[in-house]
Amino acid sequence: MSEQGRTVESVRRANLGSILGIVHREGPQSRAALTESTGLNRSTVADLVGSLVSFGLVTERAPDPSRRVGRPSPVVAVDPAVVAIAVNPEVDALEVAAVGLDRELRAVVVLSQDHLLTPERTAELIATQIVTWRRGDLADARILGVGLAVPGLVRIEDGLVRDAPHLGWVDVPLRDLVAAATGIPVVVGNDATLGTIAEHLFGAARGIDHAVYLNGGASGIGGGIIVNGMPVVGAGGYAGEIGQNRPGIATLADRRARDGVLEDEVSRARLLSVVGLTRGDDRELADALAAHSDTPSVAGEVDRQRRILATALANAVNALNPSAIVLGGFLAVLAGLDVAALEQAVRAQAMPACGEDLQILPAALAEHRLLIGAAEAVFEGVLANPQAV
Amino acid sequence: MSEQGRTVESVRRANLGSILGIVHREGPQSRAALTESTGLNRSTVADLVGSLVSFGLVTERAPDPSRRVGRPSPVVAVDPAVVAIAVNPEVDALEVAAVGLDRELRAVVVLSQDHLLTPERTAELIATQIVTWRRGDLADARILGVGLAVPGLVRIEDGLVRDAPHLGWVDVPLRDLVAAATGIPVVVGNDATLGTIAEHLFGAARGIDHAVYLNGGASGIGGGIIVNGMPVVGAGGYAGEIGQNRPGIATLADRRARDGVLEDEVSRARLLSVVGLTRGDDRELADALAAHSDTPSVAGEVDRQRRILATALANAVNALNPSAIVLGGFLAVLAGLDVAALEQAVRAQAMPACGEDLQILPAALAEHRLLIGAAEAVFEGVLANPQAV
Repeated sequence: MSEQGRTVESVRRANLGSILGIVHREGPQSRAALTESTGLNRSTVADLVGSLVSFGLVTERAPDPSRRVGRPSPVVAVDPAVVAIAVNPEVDALEVAAVGLDRELRAVVVLSQDHLLTPERTAELIATQIVTWRRGDLADARILGVGLAVPGLVRIEDGLVRDAPHLGWVDVPLRDLVAAATGIPVVVGNDATLGTIAEHLFGAARGIDHAVYLNGGASGIGGGIIVNGMPVVGAGGYAGEIGQNRPGIATLADRRARDGVLEDEVSRARLLSVVGLTRGDDRELADALAAHSDTPSVAGEVDRQRRILATALANAVNALNPSAIVLGGFLAVLAGLDVAALEQAVRAQAMPACGEDLQILPAALAEHRLLIGAAEAVFEGVLANPQAV
Repeated sequence: MSEQGRTVESVRRANLGSILGIVHREGPQSRAALTESTGLNRSTVADLVGSLVSFGLVTERAPDPSRRVGRPSPVVAVDPAVVAIAVNPEVDALEVAAVGLDRELRAVVVLSQDHLLTPERTAELIATQIVTWRRGDLADARILGVGLAVPGLVRIEDGLVRDAPHLGWVDVPLRDLVAAATGIPVVVGNDATLGTIAEHLFGAARGIDHAVYLNGGASGIGGGIIVNGMPVVGAGGYAGEIGQNRPGIATLADRRARDGVLEDEVSRARLLSVVGLTRGDDRELADALAAHSDTPSVAGEVDRQRRILATALANAVNALNPSAIVLGGFLAVLAGLDVAALEQAVRAQAMPACGEDLQILPAALAEHRLLIGAAEAVFEGVLANPQAV
């Protein structure tokens, strides 16, 4: 192909990706709206949409006659048949879902487990589930790939799970195992990083180019960072582990864990314990904290955890100057007791300019964020080159 | 212009920028080497180089006949006449330099000051210096702009110096002041961020896409972060202030400053003081520490500072998974006493995978890094659109 030809092809690919990206992220759009938001001319948009229709990625429907003045413009939407299989292996269950390019969950199953899953068994269960769905719920679907959100460190270059301590997986070639079992392309990512991507594209950090996300779960604090609108993965794919940081702790009396690691000091288990629970979800935790808010030992532990959390967040604010910190899981419960006071405590420990535009926000996507993030990891490849699907 | 025309223009602009960027960063290149590294074909490269010559940005010289087999290829280099004025206002001096697009310092003056410079006086001194140089050293030069590296927080959108505490500048519209005085386009940046960019392009972090840079100076610790090969500026332009972080400090005995802020705990002044000096440059500090290495109070303070530094660096490693941490100023002295032990201490406090490929490196550009970074801030605009100069 000539140089000119290559150039035109790469521009066309980028334009196809940007149109598909808009309808994927923003929902159905008229061709006129696409023309406006891309800056491309009308005939180019018509041609690109036509190609995306022929690739089976979008559909066009007649314009809504009641809603526009002037010449009506067809409405472009992602094809509802296009899905990714999203998987989240956890300690007590394997969650498998089919997520549409429109972010709708077409199907979801939670396969409870009595004991820890092996990677091989995980691959097998996913493959079986896909076969079942292909005969039923997904009979007419087009599966683009499998995305896995793993609670552990994942090497970005080859989807090797380096260490998923709660699952007991060390150096597991998960991408290859699942690809072999299913015969479908596979992407593997860290659960918190994929959750960050989901919150950035569709949740609390939507449209925010500089954000820090921390999620507090049963097994600790995971996190992710958005810089310049892109997730920070780091040299090997392991960035975002702010939960493992050692923030300054003002007094010895405030320290509980020997090493002062954030997720050991600021912990769901410690909060549950102080209200006398051995287990409970975030809702139950929030209710119990509210019921015991006058109990000095409860108020004391809540304040202690909020103090340490504020220092850890201020450290991130100094380093990254984000405009939002998004907190999920029990961290949203802890922050939600008084968000304004937490913001103030963070600002008081950060450089004033670094924290001046900061908002602390609760995560918006709740329990589906990992599945949405895992599906997004699959869709990312399609958006980069729609004609290759 | 037609869509096709716009497209071709934007591709051409990107190609001009990438050829100019290669000879700017890597030095003189044969056209054959440029053809290879850009992937463009020979006639396209010849045409782009011809344009850059006509813009006065590069020169071509006859090939070196002794060095190649086969058809000789002309050598492309940046035009030595093209310069940026680089400025670093400090507490006791104003440093002004003319830096070539080839990174050579064409001229440099250090204007010592008895008392703090006002912003207005700073602008005046820069303008006067440029007039002087235009009559002499820079008579044949083409000045593309003025870049200022300021020890303080700079708002990225308009070059407003929010707060430069050591200079006593608050909310100073420095970009506009200097532009009005000189009649030349001006870019203003934080000194540590510009130093980071310089170390990334030309120094210790060259070719490293994920790096953290910390510089220890007389007035504290500044820093910058590189993610995906790009500097992290943050929402307002204030990122990189890791020196203001509060890292965990293992024992009360290790804490000196009330708030435990990194730059108050790990400090040049404390090191000088423990060896009995009131002032001294990094060389003198290093010599004094070596001479007193057997003195328990000196060894104790060195170890204390290294412990706290290791925790702060481990926090950055968990968050960002960099492959290099570059240390400058007295931090390079402190690290240089035993780099391997510091790396080990950092790894011991970080998630293993996050730190596994980490190197701790001394900064390479020494005292000229800020001038090189300030000039780079000017050149960045030219590289983005060479035909607009």
